[in-house]
Amino acid sequence: MTRFFVDSHTLAMERVALAGENAAHAKVLRLKASEQVLLCDGQGMEALCQVEATQPEYILSVLERRRALSEPGVKVRVYMALPKAEKLEHVIQKATELGAEQIVTFPTARCVSRPDEKSLKKKLERWQKIAASAAEQSGRGVIPEVRVLSSYQKALEEAAQADMPILLYENEHATTLRMALDSKEYSTVSLISGPEGGFEEKEVAQAQALGIRVCTLGRRILRCETAPLCAVSAVMYAAGEY
Amino acid sequence: MTRFFVDSHTLAMERVALAGENAAHAKVLRLKASEQVLLCDGQGMEALCQVEATQPEYILSVLERRRALSEPGVKVRVYMALPKAEKLEHVIQKATELGAEQIVTFPTARCVSRPDEKSLKKKLERWQKIAASAAEQSGRGVIPEVRVLSSYQKALEEAAQADMPILLYENEHATTLRMALDSKEYSTVSLISGPEGGFEEKEVAQAQALGIRVCTLGRRILRCETAPLCAVSAVMYAAGEY
Repeated sequence: MTRFFVDSHTLAMERVALAGENAAHAKVLRLKASEQVLLCDGQGMEALCQVEATQPEYILSVLERRRALSEPGVKVRVYMALPKAEKLEHVIQKATELGAEQIVTFPTARCVSRPDEKSLKKKLERWQKIAASAAEQSGRGVIPEVRVLSSYQKALEEAAQADMPILLYENEHATTLRMALDSKEYSTVSLISGPEGGFEEKEVAQAQALGIRVCTLGRRILRCETAPLCAVSAVMYAAGEY
Repeated sequence: MTRFFVDSHTLAMERVALAGENAAHAKVLRLKASEQVLLCDGQGMEALCQVEATQPEYILSVLERRRALSEPGVKVRVYMALPKAEKLEHVIQKATELGAEQIVTFPTARCVSRPDEKSLKKKLERWQKIAASAAEQSGRGVIPEVRVLSSYQKALEEAAQADMPILLYENEHATTLRMALDSKEYSTVSLISGPEGGFEEKEVAQAQALGIRVCTLGRRILRCETAPLCAVSAVMYAAGEY
């Protein structure tokens, strides 16, 4: 079903006229009267609507307002050390499709990419657009927020707040992701992953000191952009999403 | 540990002199005497070796020959309908990292990409190189074979031979991947996924007629290059790989 992202105010109305990009999109799709579409606020609420009129404007009448059906039951946040540009863009797009709640990036000791504040601001706008576009295409009810934290320590402290905070580490051989996920009930998961060169040992210890579980993703070395997506896929599977 | 791919004949020797690209690679890595490295035949066997000499040649002596430790216990074949070029390359690289045994591509009704035989031959060489390079980087003991089949029916018939043949379909809502994987024991899995425009209904029926399970990957629409990688990640998790 076609979905249009609107603000929460619009979602609360009984009749909605599509405007701007949404109207243009409706025209491209040749939306017809009596067709059903979804309005989403990108924050987890949606409204099932029927097209009432297409001329001179697209007018939708709301049939039912509800929590977005396509959102996963488990909230998974991706904490990824800042990689080279195109890799983070890839992870943002794919993690959004896979159902991640947020994507958070931060510097670590071995990060090669060190953008200054000005270029970071510009990048962040771009990243947020990638998330919005992937959310629309994949039928998400939430547009994942993309955020930048200024230090690894801050990222760890925030990630540690989840019910199930996990750091993915290629030199961990004993504890599997499954052991961590099977160890207790959870409704929020943080998945922390390293940059191209991996984490330093002391960075791993820093995470453990905060109670974060250090897990392996198997006996193969995954690239920095593959690891978080593999882990999100596995967590969604473990949570019964598919 | 550094690994070099050699042919099976070389792997059977007691002392091995690195040649060609392997020797050049050893030089770049500044391999030192007494260091340990792995020789792999790319077909699942490996030899743990010690560097005996570095001048005038790199000479390795074999310490132990064994089945490659990094290979997963479950054999997963990716059957992906031919997508646009860069997407298949992406899937080959990532599926190799994630531990897939083979990557097989084939045409379906909605495939946009229709390369002729000559360009396909050239592409296949390129695809096989991508698999080899990803296998080396990720520490695989097997280089996944990349193959092209001439029809969807042939792909289905071959995929159906696996213990657990699964077709991923975005319009399936009842059967999850987990239901299929939990339904019986398996050591080989086929994961069939569609092109950009998805499968036609009759193509799905064609698979069902051969006993292939049709499964959902959740309530979000995954891009054609995301679905197989999500599924490989989930199957490896389900099989206890991480």
